[in-house]
Amino acid sequence: MKTVCCSILGFGAIGQGVAEVLLMKNEYLESIGLEVKVVAVVDSKGATVNLQGVDLADCLTRKRISGTVALEKITGVEVIRSVDHELVIETTPTNIKTGGAGLQNMLAAFQTGKDVITSNKGPLALNYRELVETAKAAGSNFRFEATVGGSMPVINLVNEVLAGNKVKSIKGILNGTCNYILTRMLEERASYTDILAESMQLGIAEADPKYDVEGIDTACKLVILANAIFGLNATYRDVEVTGITKVTPEALEMAYERGHVIKLIGEVSRERIQVAPRLVPINHPLAVGGTLNVASVDTELAGEITVTGKGAGPIETASAILSDLISIYGNR
Amino acid sequence: MKTVCCSILGFGAIGQGVAEVLLMKNEYLESIGLEVKVVAVVDSKGATVNLQGVDLADCLTRKRISGTVALEKITGVEVIRSVDHELVIETTPTNIKTGGAGLQNMLAAFQTGKDVITSNKGPLALNYRELVETAKAAGSNFRFEATVGGSMPVINLVNEVLAGNKVKSIKGILNGTCNYILTRMLEERASYTDILAESMQLGIAEADPKYDVEGIDTACKLVILANAIFGLNATYRDVEVTGITKVTPEALEMAYERGHVIKLIGEVSRERIQVAPRLVPINHPLAVGGTLNVASVDTELAGEITVTGKGAGPIETASAILSDLISIYGNR
Repeated sequence: MKTVCCSILGFGAIGQGVAEVLLMKNEYLESIGLEVKVVAVVDSKGATVNLQGVDLADCLTRKRISGTVALEKITGVEVIRSVDHELVIETTPTNIKTGGAGLQNMLAAFQTGKDVITSNKGPLALNYRELVETAKAAGSNFRFEATVGGSMPVINLVNEVLAGNKVKSIKGILNGTCNYILTRMLEERASYTDILAESMQLGIAEADPKYDVEGIDTACKLVILANAIFGLNATYRDVEVTGITKVTPEALEMAYERGHVIKLIGEVSRERIQVAPRLVPINHPLAVGGTLNVASVDTELAGEITVTGKGAGPIETASAILSDLISIYGNR
Repeated sequence: MKTVCCSILGFGAIGQGVAEVLLMKNEYLESIGLEVKVVAVVDSKGATVNLQGVDLADCLTRKRISGTVALEKITGVEVIRSVDHELVIETTPTNIKTGGAGLQNMLAAFQTGKDVITSNKGPLALNYRELVETAKAAGSNFRFEATVGGSMPVINLVNEVLAGNKVKSIKGILNGTCNYILTRMLEERASYTDILAESMQLGIAEADPKYDVEGIDTACKLVILANAIFGLNATYRDVEVTGITKVTPEALEMAYERGHVIKLIGEVSRERIQVAPRLVPINHPLAVGGTLNVASVDTELAGEITVTGKGAGPIETASAILSDLISIYGNR
């Protein structure tokens, strides 16, 4: 049995999802020879630290009741520097301006020789090269399947399952909120504003929807794919971005009459990184509806491989983090 | 640099695809520290053997011109027993009655401690347990991503990328010929017989189409998934099979008017293994047209993950064999 001591930094929806998945999968992990011991859980107010293993069920309850897990006032970086463990699970919120706490946490983790698994796009969209090089210099593992497409596997699909296959381009719908809005606008022949309001009510769009509807979230994911799959050195600023705020129900209907749907498509290749509303034939694998995400990988040998899945959700995202964890520490 | 000495048994379309892919990917393989040396190529008439490495380009030319690579009269099993190598790439034709030469080749390979990568469904649909146990006893690797869905990854997707995720069921279109026939019957409002004739002319259906249109091919693939993913001990005889020969253009049109298409769906779970024509909503990820294959994996944590790709084609299938090869021998 190998024991993996880890911290969970960030205890919002995704961090809590990770805690739930670790509780659910405890037995399975033991069956493949892994004991995952969480020695610290950190949120914005402080942390719970226990070298014998934090009680995750208790953390979830305390978070629900009092809004925090903090038992002592200590930050993520302090936990990384002072608490003995080997893996940092970084699930703090994305900050696309500075990289936020996530960037500091990841750099501190590598500087102290720890592995990092993250769902946090910001640091990767801004400072990918620095992070990868710091990880490499430290001999640390750095995995981030959860940053793109939630439970829909793209990075590990390409780098592991399609190994040896040169990727020519990746096209996809990488933002569930935009997909939901465009799908509903067509179904209801309703305006962008009306369906945005509906999406907010349902919790599908955030109170400040800019990050999603203006294509910023999709752009960040494309930058991660550009760097991780095409080996580029791109940042968020290299992406041509057009969002969905100008799409009209008339345009959607006209396209539909001609056998097409309009989708917010992100595309990345060695030549360009672009987000824009584009026409997709109705029976094309990219034409998926609702909040689904989809990515179509055009390869040299295998042709076009398309993968569809739930792009968000705490358990779905935590499942991508779990698969990264097994990929690093599992015996294969 | 690690040298992998291998044989290619079966030099039809897929065996030739493997040779072409190895020629194309020589440099890439070296870049990841692998030299793949083919020491024998075998077809039904005999073999070319060279311990210094067979000239694959020459084999392809001789096969094209004279219909065989045979320079000496020696069978696959004899090559396995007498020629020193560590990997058998088994691409002989599927035989669903006895397992054919493929079964004998695979067993001989394991008995002499060799690894096997195969695209041949027959032996796995008939004798999965025996093969896996013989491989295990010998400490051999046994990989067969190419048996299901050509270049569309399913087995490695589930076992590697979705590791830790319990799979509840897999549903899919696993036969491109049936998908093509049903797609065209709806498009042209034409009968099964007419479109079958068209498919034969285009080389999409074989001269004897029974294996595809009666659902036997799909059933074999489901048995492989049942055993490899659900850990069952199923054989081809455990599958309830209905093919597409009774589907009418009227049924397809009626379904379409109600927002559905009819597809030959294979479904496997712990409870049942079944092939039958079924209704699929038009905008569902399973509703892909043409000769495409698709598989929808319902998981405990990640929800439904759907993957679409080219289900056949020599290069596409060889690409799945290449990814298995890298997975066994590549440094990761």
